[in-house]
Amino acid sequence: MRYYDDLNIGDRHAGGPVTVTEEDIVAFARQFDPQPFHLDATAAEASIFRGLAASGWHTAALTMKMIVGGEGRLAGGFVGLGVDEVAWPTATRPGDTLRVESEVLEKRLTSRPDRGIARIRTTTYNQKGEVVQRLVANLLVPVRQPAEAAE
Amino acid sequence: MRYYDDLNIGDRHAGGPVTVTEEDIVAFARQFDPQPFHLDATAAEASIFRGLAASGWHTAALTMKMIVGGEGRLAGGFVGLGVDEVAWPTATRPGDTLRVESEVLEKRLTSRPDRGIARIRTTTYNQKGEVVQRLVANLLVPVRQPAEAAE
Repeated sequence: MRYYDDLNIGDRHAGGPVTVTEEDIVAFARQFDPQPFHLDATAAEASIFRGLAASGWHTAALTMKMIVGGEGRLAGGFVGLGVDEVAWPTATRPGDTLRVESEVLEKRLTSRPDRGIARIRTTTYNQKGEVVQRLVANLLVPVRQPAEAAE
Repeated sequence: MRYYDDLNIGDRHAGGPVTVTEEDIVAFARQFDPQPFHLDATAAEASIFRGLAASGWHTAALTMKMIVGGEGRLAGGFVGLGVDEVAWPTATRPGDTLRVESEVLEKRLTSRPDRGIARIRTTTYNQKGEVVQRLVANLLVPVRQPAEAAE
């Protein structure tokens, strides 16, 4: 468990893999993003995606799953204050196996002595090494308190 | 169906409502963001959220659902190139009823004559009028082609 004190700029952590099926893509889309190119392979052929593609928000949710289950856990959990960038340079496709790599870009203290903020970039790759998502998020990270010093 | 040509800066569109239950919050968290404050009301009491809170990515996915089902559809669907900002100023809680309001902030042509990009801010509110998500996204919007002029 890493506290604010333990984070170093440039620290890298990995997570994943997770494999996504056509059924996963369609189930997520039905619930949250019911557009033809996320729901139906035939309709998707005629779309800008030229084939079934996962919702970008599905890629984002799978990325979160790999962050939470990956190395480099944060004390207090992953609490996102917000996101400075999400980009989807390549679509996630049925059968893709994704993995993530996170890097600490910045850390700064807040006006509260027990909380810091870490700016972390998480890049999500498919099995070909293509970037399916680039994410830069600001996370709340507790500062180690005297009673926790032994943890 | 709106083409690039039809968008005006300042255009506003609404979507929703959608109500989110404790079961919805826990089911999403189990699948994509299995952290105690999203999974278990008792554990969540002791967390920074002081009670069960939806994953920010769940709020994002519900927002997409309301955009897709709302007014102001775009020709070719909602194809996000990326996101400039996502912030979660207030957590989504069990029983919340959310709605969205979108506003066109900017539009610009690309190097391809058939495609433009619209920068759209979508604000997600709960039933008390509190902002649970602020999102600024860049969407691909087709330019109306001669054959489509009558649509």
